[in-house]
Amino acid sequence: MTLRFYYAPGSCALASHIVLEHVGADYEAIKLDFGAKQQQTPEYLAINPKGRVPALVTDRGVITETPAILLYLAQIFPDFYLAPLDDAFALAQLQSVNSWFCSTVHVVQAHFKRAYRWADDVAAQQAMQAKVPQNMTECFDWIERELLLGPWVMGEDFTVADPYLLTMASWLAVDGLDIAKFPRVAEHCQRMRELPAVQRVLPLHGL
Amino acid sequence: MTLRFYYAPGSCALASHIVLEHVGADYEAIKLDFGAKQQQTPEYLAINPKGRVPALVTDRGVITETPAILLYLAQIFPDFYLAPLDDAFALAQLQSVNSWFCSTVHVVQAHFKRAYRWADDVAAQQAMQAKVPQNMTECFDWIERELLLGPWVMGEDFTVADPYLLTMASWLAVDGLDIAKFPRVAEHCQRMRELPAVQRVLPLHGL
Repeated sequence: MTLRFYYAPGSCALASHIVLEHVGADYEAIKLDFGAKQQQTPEYLAINPKGRVPALVTDRGVITETPAILLYLAQIFPDFYLAPLDDAFALAQLQSVNSWFCSTVHVVQAHFKRAYRWADDVAAQQAMQAKVPQNMTECFDWIERELLLGPWVMGEDFTVADPYLLTMASWLAVDGLDIAKFPRVAEHCQRMRELPAVQRVLPLHGL
Repeated sequence: MTLRFYYAPGSCALASHIVLEHVGADYEAIKLDFGAKQQQTPEYLAINPKGRVPALVTDRGVITETPAILLYLAQIFPDFYLAPLDDAFALAQLQSVNSWFCSTVHVVQAHFKRAYRWADDVAAQQAMQAKVPQNMTECFDWIERELLLGPWVMGEDFTVADPYLLTMASWLAVDGLDIAKFPRVAEHCQRMRELPAVQRVLPLHGL
């Protein structure tokens, strides 16, 4: 069965999209227009009731949440060695990175355009938006200094954490931050952009 | 080697702590006093530079982030079948739940006492705190209606998602919410409280 993959430009779906392309998966990518609220249509809510992307439709059901999709793809395409599946400690380190990306970095960024999730007051939303560049700078200082082992996120081996970092880094420009402030991250992005799969997927995400 | 596990009462470390106890791991639990900022001492920052809990010290290094620790424990104690390790789709469903817990439910709750992370303005922090009960109610409505398959989170099999849900549910009282509004969740908590491991760990977390 052909996988179906729902995404929106500018979202964290970019990470899974790159992996799907990288492994040559048999998949159909379906773009949702968030401006037209296509993630809230009854048709899409029947697929992902959370009304978010990414969502990966498989023959056994739908998978949501980026870290879950990434691990799934690493498991069903084992020949690409996208995760250290047979080494519990090394896998834990990878999962720790992906978990921090989704629960900390992505959440920091979400306060830029989606602060309404956490406060109704417009002034409060503006106060949250104002702090995003500082918080993203702190996250990327940490990535630059500690997290990114190099040349890939986890060291010598390319893993699913690499397209995920590229996704996080693509949001720096949205916040008015210059990636050049984080030279090792910038170099990682450049390395990613040399991959054919990344070159095919980025334009679909307006990047 | 004896595992060392750092935790603080009231934190998400409860989930991993229950699993360590449940599998009978050879581990030492070390309580940090957040009131005394023990998570910010040089000694602890040498273990987890993020200054957070949980942190699990193994003979190969430190693991942080709850979903990563939970998957690791499921892998190194396979006899307890705490995750469907040999079924990529079922594992993805479990990881999806754990990922949503850390990136959505935990983040909602963090706006109650730690809103300063996302805005400097005190009025903005109060506006965030004010919305937490509504957001937690929405999360638990979803858990009650869709996520909790029953009798355990993932259905028939007890998994690492179960202590994680108990942890999320333990925060309802902090927000002034009555768990009785979510009868299936309340029943799940009761089922959890019948487990000897849970009975041993909850008092250590002031519960």
